[in-house]
Amino acid sequence: MDRLTIVKVGGKVVEEPELLDRLLDDFVRVTGYKMLVHGGGKAATQIADRLGLETKMVDGRRITDADMLEVVTMVYGGLVNKRVVAGLQSRNVNALGLSGADLDLIRARKRPVEDIDYGFVGDVENINTRELRLLLRENVVPVVAPLTHNGKGLILNTNADTIAAHMAIDLANHFKVFLFYCFEKRGVLSDPLDDNSVLPELNESEFLRLQNLGTISSGMIPKLQNGFKALHSGVSEVLVTNPENFSRGRGTRLLRG
Amino acid sequence: MDRLTIVKVGGKVVEEPELLDRLLDDFVRVTGYKMLVHGGGKAATQIADRLGLETKMVDGRRITDADMLEVVTMVYGGLVNKRVVAGLQSRNVNALGLSGADLDLIRARKRPVEDIDYGFVGDVENINTRELRLLLRENVVPVVAPLTHNGKGLILNTNADTIAAHMAIDLANHFKVFLFYCFEKRGVLSDPLDDNSVLPELNESEFLRLQNLGTISSGMIPKLQNGFKALHSGVSEVLVTNPENFSRGRGTRLLRG
Repeated sequence: MDRLTIVKVGGKVVEEPELLDRLLDDFVRVTGYKMLVHGGGKAATQIADRLGLETKMVDGRRITDADMLEVVTMVYGGLVNKRVVAGLQSRNVNALGLSGADLDLIRARKRPVEDIDYGFVGDVENINTRELRLLLRENVVPVVAPLTHNGKGLILNTNADTIAAHMAIDLANHFKVFLFYCFEKRGVLSDPLDDNSVLPELNESEFLRLQNLGTISSGMIPKLQNGFKALHSGVSEVLVTNPENFSRGRGTRLLRG
Repeated sequence: MDRLTIVKVGGKVVEEPELLDRLLDDFVRVTGYKMLVHGGGKAATQIADRLGLETKMVDGRRITDADMLEVVTMVYGGLVNKRVVAGLQSRNVNALGLSGADLDLIRARKRPVEDIDYGFVGDVENINTRELRLLLRENVVPVVAPLTHNGKGLILNTNADTIAAHMAIDLANHFKVFLFYCFEKRGVLSDPLDDNSVLPELNESEFLRLQNLGTISSGMIPKLQNGFKALHSGVSEVLVTNPENFSRGRGTRLLRG
């Protein structure tokens, strides 16, 4: 099978022009088919703030009321996505920006209200990569914003790590998929206070142990849960790394079993 | 050749949920291949206003400084575009939102500063519909936002009427193209004060005569210039109409010669 590299990059990296430039310079050097999944939370918070809207987060997840849904639709689907696309086009990469509504790529269900009402947040229900695969074969590079739709006209806000995992799992039926989660640190740390304590490898039982110890916490937990799910569902390799190191394959490699 | 219908809709129609719903209900009934080009100026003005940015217009064209470029990128490429796409998907139309940067669809040059500095406004230089045509054949319905790029990483603001004409002309090499310009009135009026004075047909010499008389003025002038250019460059039919009547083929039909 052909190789497909999926790079997920967090908010900060795509929001600061210098960091974005460096990321894209590295990304264009990735050989084989490739795609990018991006966040944009920091820019969304900034724009919300300028619009006089308060950003409420619970466990690192954004509460998305109707006004905030407008903001994330604008910022993720417009501002951030088109900047990345234009940046790739300037590097002769034929990028195509997509939300989950485009090409019916990602259908989601509005999260049911339990203890917390997350508002217009979508849990992924279905992935359709038919047209996306056709485009990949034409050397188009998809750039996916963390937005989904419910098939009834409603856009929903969905975590970018989750989207990257679902896309990777679906595309693993057609490609040998390498999934890179890029964030601020060089990998998963064995000591949260020491940025150099990067674990070269991590399996799921060790992850659960470190989670119980509190060594791994907050936003890293869903990222790793998504990563292990992908690894157990046909994805060839999952690496947690940062934008400076992903192209060298350095970081924390998730291990099966 | 296969039929391709390009419908250009102005800002108001895509920005008010009820009008948008009605438009999309009509649009899905258009047979054959089809695409939508949309504006979004009113929403951009509103968001700019909420962000404390002043909107400056010259002859109906928006002065686009760096801050306003952010706004139009967000609003056209994100907010408006994704709403239209999600609305079409809910009607089982496989829509794909595109800016001119996506798939390298529309390259433009930043308008040189002469009497007026329009800022980040792009004049169309090149259209690339290779991937778009592939997608049309797969029954994908493109939804194009009025944004272009310069190939060097810069997004530019470009008039939606102009984009519709350029796309129509390029695609006329591959399809029998019908171009519908939808705006507030039922067509071109012979008496600007009488909404019922719709001209059923208009040729270019009559257009120039009415323009000299001042009967046709402001935003209608570039719309008709674009329409006649399209008609003289291979497009089969150009109709100036409103969202309620385009699907019935009613409005002002532009005539050759």
